[in-house]
Amino acid sequence: MSQDRISKQINFILRIDKEKQIERQTHLTDHGRRENDAEHAWHMAVMAYLLREYSNDRIDIAKTMLMCLIHDIVEIEAGDTYAYDDDGKKNQHSREEAAADHIFGLLPNDQRDELRALFEEFDSGNTPEANFARAMDNFQPILLNNSNNGSDWREHGVSRDMVEARQKRTIPGSRVIYDIIETILDKNVKKGSLKA
Amino acid sequence: MSQDRISKQINFILRIDKEKQIERQTHLTDHGRRENDAEHAWHMAVMAYLLREYSNDRIDIAKTMLMCLIHDIVEIEAGDTYAYDDDGKKNQHSREEAAADHIFGLLPNDQRDELRALFEEFDSGNTPEANFARAMDNFQPILLNNSNNGSDWREHGVSRDMVEARQKRTIPGSRVIYDIIETILDKNVKKGSLKA
Repeated sequence: MSQDRISKQINFILRIDKEKQIERQTHLTDHGRRENDAEHAWHMAVMAYLLREYSNDRIDIAKTMLMCLIHDIVEIEAGDTYAYDDDGKKNQHSREEAAADHIFGLLPNDQRDELRALFEEFDSGNTPEANFARAMDNFQPILLNNSNNGSDWREHGVSRDMVEARQKRTIPGSRVIYDIIETILDKNVKKGSLKA
Repeated sequence: MSQDRISKQINFILRIDKEKQIERQTHLTDHGRRENDAEHAWHMAVMAYLLREYSNDRIDIAKTMLMCLIHDIVEIEAGDTYAYDDDGKKNQHSREEAAADHIFGLLPNDQRDELRALFEEFDSGNTPEANFARAMDNFQPILLNNSNNGSDWREHGVSRDMVEARQKRTIPGSRVIYDIIETILDKNVKKGSLKA
């Protein structure tokens, strides 16, 4: 065992504790407080395992779960960018790349490179695992928000078109889940939670 | 796709959202608020991946991560039992078994049986994956608490013997990590955070 190696690993593990402090816009079920990135990542990883039968393509489930678990680590420094915050989205990429340099840079080189590549793949890759992990990233807040009668959409004045534009990224991961999302959106438009 | 099957899966996914509300005794780094079970499980799963080279035995990493992610789900109904709460520990097993019946019972039968078996394996199994997942369950709060100068131990008047009795369960998973824990405990006894 190399003392230097395990020290770096432990430093990284302590650094990412801060992900528990990064608040998202989504509220927990039963109109609870806002959820944080670590909770969201945990939920997504369990979902990925349970729903993997709906992936369009065969996936490596360990890789997909790990991708879910680490995809938001950069937000420790770059902050959470709300799905419908067009201003925030303008420099999101450069903020997140700088954060990835710092945070993954705490790890031993081999693990730094591996996790960085996995993060980039999640962000923009077209692999079965990235597609399915992004489907989970999209579906998880839809489920919570729908359970709260769409109150997050109401609060932000979100329209069906806005949600759909984002949810198009769910299709390459899972057509089955995209169809469920469409049904949920229709229901929320009918109830007036989502602008038509 | 069976509508009944996916409805059950979604019900389970929404039910486990409550794990984000189950508070543990451990505080976040920099003396933050207490962490919750979902955050703890997320942290453990990432740690399992990064530290798997220190497992005594070869492990199936997907199985180990999933075990980390679901091991505390029963606490949604059974509550968190503090590691050094001897009274709470008396009926912990029966409380957790009843909760496992209810919560895993929401899933389709095949997934109910799979996750239940995984939970039982984590709880009392002697497999490489269960041993390593338990090592993570033990090591994660030690790291947080040590980063806070042992304030959780101080608050509860915990002694080195008490921690060590629990940490014996780390040895079958990882002797390397057990040695690191021993070093951390020595340091905290010296500082007076842990009773000798």
